[in-house]
Amino acid sequence: MTKQELISQIRLKKSFLCVGLDPDLEKIPKHLLKEVDSIFSFNKAIIDATHKFCVSYKPNSAFYEAHGVKGFHSLVKTIDYIKSNYPAHFIIADAKRGDIGNTSAMYARAFFQEMKADAITVAPYMGSDSVKPFLTYKDKWVVLLALTSNEGAFDFQTSPFEGGRPATADGGMSLFEKVLSVSKTWGTEENMMYVIGATKAASLKDVRKIIPNHFLLIPGVGAQGGSLEEVCKYGLTKDIGLLINSSRQIIYASNKEDFAERACDEAAKLQKEMSIYF
Amino acid sequence: MTKQELISQIRLKKSFLCVGLDPDLEKIPKHLLKEVDSIFSFNKAIIDATHKFCVSYKPNSAFYEAHGVKGFHSLVKTIDYIKSNYPAHFIIADAKRGDIGNTSAMYARAFFQEMKADAITVAPYMGSDSVKPFLTYKDKWVVLLALTSNEGAFDFQTSPFEGGRPATADGGMSLFEKVLSVSKTWGTEENMMYVIGATKAASLKDVRKIIPNHFLLIPGVGAQGGSLEEVCKYGLTKDIGLLINSSRQIIYASNKEDFAERACDEAAKLQKEMSIYF
Repeated sequence: MTKQELISQIRLKKSFLCVGLDPDLEKIPKHLLKEVDSIFSFNKAIIDATHKFCVSYKPNSAFYEAHGVKGFHSLVKTIDYIKSNYPAHFIIADAKRGDIGNTSAMYARAFFQEMKADAITVAPYMGSDSVKPFLTYKDKWVVLLALTSNEGAFDFQTSPFEGGRPATADGGMSLFEKVLSVSKTWGTEENMMYVIGATKAASLKDVRKIIPNHFLLIPGVGAQGGSLEEVCKYGLTKDIGLLINSSRQIIYASNKEDFAERACDEAAKLQKEMSIYF
Repeated sequence: MTKQELISQIRLKKSFLCVGLDPDLEKIPKHLLKEVDSIFSFNKAIIDATHKFCVSYKPNSAFYEAHGVKGFHSLVKTIDYIKSNYPAHFIIADAKRGDIGNTSAMYARAFFQEMKADAITVAPYMGSDSVKPFLTYKDKWVVLLALTSNEGAFDFQTSPFEGGRPATADGGMSLFEKVLSVSKTWGTEENMMYVIGATKAASLKDVRKIIPNHFLLIPGVGAQGGSLEEVCKYGLTKDIGLLINSSRQIIYASNKEDFAERACDEAAKLQKEMSIYF
C-alpha cells in the first residue's frame, strides 16, 4: 500500500485507528474454544465488527507462534481474510524481527511474500543491513522500533549518547533519537514508519523535530495508559501521520457472546474521538 | 539444560561447536527438492552427520518462516528430531525476538514450551521487561544480542554513551557494553549468554572485563570472515565459555549427493581445531 492510499483511507473514514489482533485463548470468549480454529474465529468476528472504524490491523505474531504450527496457520489465515475481504486496510505484522542481511531477507520473504502483510515491525539494534532487505519490496513498509511503550524503554532507548546532534532540552541525544536520525536515511517517508509509545507522548515533540512527516505507529493507548489527546497534540502532521493502535481495549471489551458488538462499540468510540482532528 | 550439563558435553567431546541450521532451498542439494519436506530431510542428514562433533544446533527461524506454515512445521520437526535422537545437544532457537512483557511471554511459550528449545536469541532494544519473561523458565536460556557480526553493528552497538562506566581503552562505553553491564543483573551465568560476533574478536577483551564467565555465542567464523584462533585468544574462560557457530561452512560444504559427508568433514575439522584448547 502506498502512503497516499493510506492517507486517503484515513481521510475517508476520519480514523487513524489500528486494531491490534493479540488473541489470547485465556481471554477470548469461552464459547469460541470449541471451534476448530478458535483464534481465527475470534479474529474474524473482531475484524467484521470493527473494519468500518479502523484503517489498519496489527496481528501480533507472538500470540500465534505460542500455539505452534496451528497458531502460525491462524496468523496466515487472519492476514488472508483481511486481504480478501477488506483490501483497503493496512496490515502490520507485529513481529519485531531483524537479523543479518541474508536472514532479514528471509523474514521479508515470510511476511511480505508468503503472508502479504503491508508492513512489519523491525528492531533497530543490528543496524542498517538488518533493516534494508525489508525496504526492497515495492509499497511495503518497515515500522522501526524507536521509543517503545514499556518500562524497559528506559534501560537503553532514553540513555544519552556522546557527541549526538543536540535534540533534547538538555542538549544531549538519546539512543532512540540517534536511531531516528541515522535510520531515516535508510528509506523514505514512503516506506518507513516508527514505533513511538503513547506512554511517552511528550517525547513526540522531540521526535517530530527529527522526523517531521514520517508516519508513526503509536501503541500504548488504553490498557497501557497512554492518552489519545496527548499523542495528537504532539504527533499530528498535515497528513495525520499517525496510526494509533488499540488492542486489549477493543478486542477484550467483553469476554461473553457480545464480544464483537462490544469491540465494535469501542472501535466506534475511538474513531469518534479521532474524527475531531479532521 | 543446565550450565554444568553443557560444560560436561563440551569437555566430553572436546568441542564447543554449534552448527547453524539455515536451510535455503536455493542452496541445498537439488536431489532433496523432490522430498515431501526438503528442509527437514536436509536438516536430518546434516544432524546425523555432524552430531558427534558438535554440542549445539542453532536453527535460524527466518529460514523456516520464509516458507510459511510448511516451513514453520519443518522447524518444529527439526527441534523434535534433535530432542528425540540427540538429547544432550543444546538447541538454540535463533529467533531474535523481544517485545513488551505480555508478548515476550508468548514468544517464550512458543520456543520453550511448544518447541522445547533450550535457548532463544533475544534483542535487547526494548529493555528488561522484554527479556525477563524468557528467564522464568527453569534450565532455559536467553542468548542476548550484544555485538553482532554484521556491518550494521557499527550503526548503534559501538556508539559511545555519555557517563558510562569506563570500559574501553579510551575511557568511553559503547552501547553494547552498556547492554552487557545493565542486562547481566537480569539473569545469571546459569540462564544468560550473549552474542558476540567473531568478526569483532578483539572486542572480546572488553567483553570479558564486564562478563568474565558468561557463555558467549559466537557467530561469524567462516563465511563471514571471523577467526577461531582470535576468538579463543580473547574469549575462552576456565569452563571454555564459548559456543562457536558455523552455518554455511558446514551445511553448504557441498551441494551434491555427498553434502552430508562433506558437512561431517567440516564439522570434524572445526572440532579438531577446537580440541587443542582442552
